[in-house]
Amino acid sequence: MSDFNSEKEMFDTMQDKLNSAVISDILDSLGAREQAMRPDMRPVYWGATIAGRAYPVLAADIFQLREELKNDPYRGEIEAVDSLKPNDVFVGCINRSSRAGFWGELLATAARARGGRGAIIDGCTRDVAQLTKMNFPTFATGIRVPDSKGRCMVIDHGCPVNCGGVLVNPGDIVFGDIDGVVVIPRELEEKVIPLALEKEGKENLLRNELLKGMTLRDAYNKHRVL
Amino acid sequence: MSDFNSEKEMFDTMQDKLNSAVISDILDSLGAREQAMRPDMRPVYWGATIAGRAYPVLAADIFQLREELKNDPYRGEIEAVDSLKPNDVFVGCINRSSRAGFWGELLATAARARGGRGAIIDGCTRDVAQLTKMNFPTFATGIRVPDSKGRCMVIDHGCPVNCGGVLVNPGDIVFGDIDGVVVIPRELEEKVIPLALEKEGKENLLRNELLKGMTLRDAYNKHRVL
Amino acid sequence: MSDFNSEKEMFDTMQDKLNSAVISDILDSLGAREQAMRPDMRPVYWGATIAGRAYPVLAADIFQLREELKNDPYRGEIEAVDSLKPNDVFVGCINRSSRAGFWGELLATAARARGGRGAIIDGCTRDVAQLTKMNFPTFATGIRVPDSKGRCMVIDHGCPVNCGGVLVNPGDIVFGDIDGVVVIPRELEEKVIPLALEKEGKENLLRNELLKGMTLRDAYNKHRVL
Amino acid sequence: MSDFNSEKEMFDTMQDKLNSAVISDILDSLGAREQAMRPDMRPVYWGATIAGRAYPVLAADIFQLREELKNDPYRGEIEAVDSLKPNDVFVGCINRSSRAGFWGELLATAARARGGRGAIIDGCTRDVAQLTKMNFPTFATGIRVPDSKGRCMVIDHGCPVNCGGVLVNPGDIVFGDIDGVVVIPRELEEKVIPLALEKEGKENLLRNELLKGMTLRDAYNKHRVL
Amino acid sequence: MSDFNSEKEMFDTMQDKLNSAVISDILDSLGAREQAMRPDMRPVYWGATIAGRAYPVLAADIFQLREELKNDPYRGEIEAVDSLKPNDVFVGCINRSSRAGFWGELLATAARARGGRGAIIDGCTRDVAQLTKMNFPTFATGIRVPDSKGRCMVIDHGCPVNCGGVLVNPGDIVFGDIDGVVVIPRELEEKVIPLALEKEGKENLLRNELLKGMTLRDAYNKHRVL
Amino acid sequence: MSDFNSEKEMFDTMQDKLNSAVISDILDSLGAREQAMRPDMRPVYWGATIAGRAYPVLAADIFQLREELKNDPYRGEIEAVDSLKPNDVFVGCINRSSRAGFWGELLATAARARGGRGAIIDGCTRDVAQLTKMNFPTFATGIRVPDSKGRCMVIDHGCPVNCGGVLVNPGDIVFGDIDGVVVIPRELEEKVIPLALEKEGKENLLRNELLKGMTLRDAYNKHRVL
Repeated sequence: MSDFNSEKEMFDTMQDKLNSAVISDILDSLGAREQAMRPDMRPVYWGATIAGRAYPVLAADIFQLREELKNDPYRGEIEAVDSLKPNDVFVGCINRSSRAGFWGELLATAARARGGRGAIIDGCTRDVAQLTKMNFPTFATGIRVPDSKGRCMVIDHGCPVNCGGVLVNPGDIVFGDIDGVVVIPRELEEKVIPLALEKEGKENLLRNELLKGMTLRDAYNKHRVL
Repeated sequence: MSDFNSEKEMFDTMQDKLNSAVISDILDSLGAREQAMRPDMRPVYWGATIAGRAYPVLAADIFQLREELKNDPYRGEIEAVDSLKPNDVFVGCINRSSRAGFWGELLATAARARGGRGAIIDGCTRDVAQLTKMNFPTFATGIRVPDSKGRCMVIDHGCPVNCGGVLVNPGDIVFGDIDGVVVIPRELEEKVIPLALEKEGKENLLRNELLKGMTLRDAYNKHRVL
Repeated sequence: MSDFNSEKEMFDTMQDKLNSAVISDILDSLGAREQAMRPDMRPVYWGATIAGRAYPVLAADIFQLREELKNDPYRGEIEAVDSLKPNDVFVGCINRSSRAGFWGELLATAARARGGRGAIIDGCTRDVAQLTKMNFPTFATGIRVPDSKGRCMVIDHGCPVNCGGVLVNPGDIVFGDIDGVVVIPRELEEKVIPLALEKEGKENLLRNELLKGMTLRDAYNKHRVL
Repeated sequence: MSDFNSEKEMFDTMQDKLNSAVISDILDSLGAREQAMRPDMRPVYWGATIAGRAYPVLAADIFQLREELKNDPYRGEIEAVDSLKPNDVFVGCINRSSRAGFWGELLATAARARGGRGAIIDGCTRDVAQLTKMNFPTFATGIRVPDSKGRCMVIDHGCPVNCGGVLVNPGDIVFGDIDGVVVIPRELEEKVIPLALEKEGKENLLRNELLKGMTLRDAYNKHRVL
Repeated sequence: MSDFNSEKEMFDTMQDKLNSAVISDILDSLGAREQAMRPDMRPVYWGATIAGRAYPVLAADIFQLREELKNDPYRGEIEAVDSLKPNDVFVGCINRSSRAGFWGELLATAARARGGRGAIIDGCTRDVAQLTKMNFPTFATGIRVPDSKGRCMVIDHGCPVNCGGVLVNPGDIVFGDIDGVVVIPRELEEKVIPLALEKEGKENLLRNELLKGMTLRDAYNKHRVL
Repeated sequence: MSDFNSEKEMFDTMQDKLNSAVISDILDSLGAREQAMRPDMRPVYWGATIAGRAYPVLAADIFQLREELKNDPYRGEIEAVDSLKPNDVFVGCINRSSRAGFWGELLATAARARGGRGAIIDGCTRDVAQLTKMNFPTFATGIRVPDSKGRCMVIDHGCPVNCGGVLVNPGDIVFGDIDGVVVIPRELEEKVIPLALEKEGKENLLRNELLKGMTLRDAYNKHRVL
């Protein structure tokens, strides 16, 4: 983070200048080749982009509200959302369940009030129209109407989860755009971000040669980037 | 329907003021918890919204046009579409077949001329560009090019069908938006619609508190809505 | 092609006046009933339309870069893209693999410089934002972030491939729009294109009658088109 | 149960004289038409048959053992198995997860020592060779090697669960054989069992006529059973 | 059939001497390369083998018994089974539906009384224990308990159907064993059967050389068969 | 291998005394928690068990035999099988393709003549009846009739492949039984085998206590094994 004045500036810069493909290429070059989520993890609206620190939340399908939750059916969700800190991304894992829309507008509104930058759900969301209108970047494996009450329950948060096929630890950086989501493990972030900014520049050179009609063979031989 | 001057006014109001999530929450509160279609039932264009009465149509895959239909290959589809009454929604079930685009622009044009408000197809549609241009709200489990002639056949209509995993009876209300489709059984509609309009109001209050920075815990404790 | 001054004019006219549905209907009428790709072959942006000659490319998943490719990891992709001729469409088959984004912006830029009109990938692409911005029509069965280096390898090109469930030979015409992709075998193109242009006209007549309120039964009996 | 001297005798008789098909037919005739589990719920060895009372157990995928469980990683499984009473069937729901073999030989040995009659797992089992050798009837949606430690966690037991697509309440009767598993809701058991025993008899009559060469039409008209 | 005294002798010989792999290889050599059913079409018991003439039956999912069928709910199934002639195989297509066990013991008993040699179902069967005991070879894409009454309906028979991904015409030969099912189009049967019997012989020679330790390279070079 | 007189003795002992579950538990305890193949990798006959060294083979779907292979269509398969050394297991990856039966009796016969101990195919096999009769342990993700000629092609061998979701390097130990397949990375084999033999003993003690009626809680507290 040394090149930035704040985490916020770092994540804003990433959203502005980088994309998931170039980050993935740099992760590849560092030997971290399994950091991209499955292709069914999609942004719910065109243009949604997230960069932030993962706050993982683990949930499970249930088929009856437990007695102790009758008066407080959303206890886990509420605790998890109220735990978000500035620049966090809510990374929810319900193991691709499509029983309910686990995420939605009111959770997003509360998350944003805590400084949350987005949500990535291995499961379904609802309230897509409102999430779009409030421009709260949300990625999910599906969209489903029903409320989570009596259908899903948060069983832990702030713990490692598998989301979209990638293990996400609290504090890892997650980056999502139209191509999908990649996870930057905490210990690699100091290397990945400057290298990704640098590679963006080289691709611009290559692109210009191609636009002028150079064959891909000649352009690649010259720039060694693709 | 007592609060509306006409069915048309009721459905227009629903499209205008409600969404599938709030309707689903009210259905939940009345114990009807399995009324949301599967998440693969999607609107074919962004912004498509339907409210109307289901006119169910049952179709099946075929592999050769029957002799008696050689001169009238679309007999079933034509009969079904010509049976639509004002405010009806064509609810077609082909058991998720993707052999053909069972629905399309010309059927939609004819359906609209009869007063039809949209189509929900457990199967594929085609002519998505034209359906979008004519703003005919269509939900389907897929999009596929080929014509239904010799590929699907209507085998009954005006009968119960399972569409998107929910049993739909003739005259049930179907409501679809970006989050998916819910079915309001006929006997519950008098209760569901006013309660849904009321819940919308409460959510607005909660949202405002959250926007001002109240924690989700405090906001929920105060309003008991999520 | 006799009715057009050039291949380019023919394909531009097709993109302008035709759609996949009418082409599929004409293919049906000529007995070629299995020419539409599977419904998971989707355009990556709204409005993408392609008509052109297929240049098929066959790729396979790999799990380690071969020694001989260490210094030239994209050899196959480069050869394949540099082989494109004006009006060609890159038709890539990786057997629906989602290991990598096999297609992307730089390949598209190079393809366009050779006169390529688009790409159809039985597998994943990446760089969707850039492909959209440069308006390079791309169809794929998925979107995935990682680069193809060390994940996929071109094993042949200019050979028949199965793409989206349809056998595509070099030089076949491929046509894709929002409804999906159809393949016109070379030997049928002289018949299909004029017949498709003609059918478009008849559908306009039918549509007008329907808009005026004629029942579908009467309209169909009069025009015998649906 | 009035016709039997004990629950054990009732379940032994059911295993001996009935099969899932005839029970399902009787449930159909009483209007309970959604009591058969999905077809991916299969016996793990040929000849496995279970009848007993469901003891439902709810589990969830996890990705790290919680601190408090470091010294007692199987706490939930142990509690659940030790809660079984004579004639119970362990009905485990992990939402079709295939992360681990949730059931296995040692749990089965402990379950049998408590009087348990079998296991039905919406998820995977392991130790299939040993389960077969000890003839402990086990049904599962898959078979997978890894241990559940750090992969799945019991989150509740003695509560309703959805298993194989059917809601199972504690005390419902579950019956499984080579054709699959059916659930007899507690309130219907007094009706279902005698009717099923009776239907078995009628089918024998019909079968004999068919064996003698009577057409299906004549045999059905005479016996009105199929 | 010229080499056999009767159809029965021909099919008995095929079951005795041939297997699906060698038949498929001969079909390949004659250019008929898409005659093997999908791999989810499996025999329901180990050792089931069928050779016979296809009698295709087309069925569809329904969600309510039609009024006219209230007193005769199995009309279509009964008609179809009673239409079987000696050496026929019931080839049922329900488009892979798993709503019901469409085939079962009583239909098999009636089919055998008409001379039927087996059943191939693109959908589910039930009564697997009894089908095994009566040694009635049955292939299906699944096994499911519920009865077809009110769940599936025969909509045509004696017509072409797609079963397991292959178009089957009435009178085509179907052959199934542990490796799957192949369809021999009527017009090829005179060629396929003698060539398949001949290839079996050559493979025996090759196998013997391999058993003696010859490398696969040398053995293939000598016999040109694999 | 230090405890065995030969590789053969080591693998024979493993097949005799160990099972995939205990090996997986030991791998877990050493931190290698992703070494079990997906649950769709199944033995093709009951009782098939393999232990041996992986010889990985990479194949791909093709849609036309290349010109240069017209006279030698199985070149890659032949080379790969003739490369097997004593105690090797053919580990074939075709990326779960079901186009053809990639493995079969003649390849198995040749493999055994070279000392091969079995085959594990991420794709389909055929000749299941003959593989069973010759007791050649084969694991596959499916069974399909057609020959590989013109459908699949070996593109590399002796290289790393992903098989059943696990990366397999040449020389890794693979172990398969009724519960599935696990991969022991070469560098862990010296630790895994003795620890697995030891754990088998402890489980026997626990099992005996359970058989005598001890609760699972008491038995686990005493032996700390499950």
